[in-house]
Amino acid sequence: MTQAKSPFNVVFVLFDNVTQLDFTGPAQFLCRMPGAKVHVAAASLDPVMTDVGFGIMPTVTFEDCPQADLLCLPGGLGVAPALSDDALIAFVRAQASAAQWVTSVCTGAFILGRAGLLQGRRATTHWGYTNLLPMVGALHEDARTVFDGNVVTAGGVTSGIDFALTIIAHLHGEDVARSLQLNFEYDPAPPFAGGTPVTSPPHIVQAMQTRFYDARSAEMEAALVATA
Amino acid sequence: MTQAKSPFNVVFVLFDNVTQLDFTGPAQFLCRMPGAKVHVAAASLDPVMTDVGFGIMPTVTFEDCPQADLLCLPGGLGVAPALSDDALIAFVRAQASAAQWVTSVCTGAFILGRAGLLQGRRATTHWGYTNLLPMVGALHEDARTVFDGNVVTAGGVTSGIDFALTIIAHLHGEDVARSLQLNFEYDPAPPFAGGTPVTSPPHIVQAMQTRFYDARSAEMEAALVATA
Repeated sequence: MTQAKSPFNVVFVLFDNVTQLDFTGPAQFLCRMPGAKVHVAAASLDPVMTDVGFGIMPTVTFEDCPQADLLCLPGGLGVAPALSDDALIAFVRAQASAAQWVTSVCTGAFILGRAGLLQGRRATTHWGYTNLLPMVGALHEDARTVFDGNVVTAGGVTSGIDFALTIIAHLHGEDVARSLQLNFEYDPAPPFAGGTPVTSPPHIVQAMQTRFYDARSAEMEAALVATA
Repeated sequence: MTQAKSPFNVVFVLFDNVTQLDFTGPAQFLCRMPGAKVHVAAASLDPVMTDVGFGIMPTVTFEDCPQADLLCLPGGLGVAPALSDDALIAFVRAQASAAQWVTSVCTGAFILGRAGLLQGRRATTHWGYTNLLPMVGALHEDARTVFDGNVVTAGGVTSGIDFALTIIAHLHGEDVARSLQLNFEYDPAPPFAGGTPVTSPPHIVQAMQTRFYDARSAEMEAALVATA
């Protein structure tokens, strides 16, 4: 257990078409971490449109954001276009240089990668994109949350909740993490086993791959090539 | 499996100091249910402040909201004050009268209760408040998601994700639910067993109860008495 400083600034970076649960899941748990203050940073204070169709109000602009102790990049379909957003990438790079923890959920990993932060690191991302990790110099590790030094990457979407609890346990110990699990009644009971390509029925994996992820992964690859 | 109509209007009702994951968790899954359209309804289109400290932009006002096929009330510390918000309660009652499904996550159950919608129903809510369910005429059933006719109530916060998947499986079958679990990589791996008063260590439950839930439950009880 490491002693965390207080206030401990948790900074989430938002961009249009973010998969909102990548951010809202870990934010719910991290905002109750002792001493933590959650900031939602974006280019301006205008609402950021999420993938669900509602906007989220940033709490701070890139310009006015305090130094993050924990920086977190969520993912989503907005990542590919965000890779060519120079202001966003510069913000991530500058914040990461002094953050205690540099983290991502889902395809947010590719924003870290684009900023040069995954070079030589073990990392993970959403299962539909893990094959692209070498394009940003990372080695895929097959785990829900991957620690490599101060860089922590999580798998797709709902992984963000487990990632947050893992960080909380690491910084504040088991009792605090257990208290927050109880507070948010986190005793998950998915109706079906599955949720990964290995544990889902093959016809489901095949359908998701051909209907969605072949095209999405190609789009991300093109964006990575264009911004390399 | 019931055939769902398309568009299938999913209406979440927001109010200040909502526990945002009560809403954002199920919204993430329900927005990808075939034919579904998610609406975020509030008294006005001004941002609604969440418990995490960021605002969410409603997509529609109570006045302009289409008839919900599935109405969902999230919970949070904002529920007790919302019980005396006559416009919100009237909206919930009117929507519920023609909705296919009337649902809640966490302490959102007490808004349904205040609107008279839990009378004689089996229901659940966040574990810290289950003892108050008889005040709104409901009988507590100890389950993560409780179906009683067209009324579906879920337990605390993260229960909302399992609730959404259960509804999706009910309306669209196992393959659609499994596909969305895979899409959002929902293969939860909490760092510790627990998350309920029965499965958490007694000293954790005791501490959460005395530090938080005794006072919160008393506040809800007073609000229920005041608006009965």
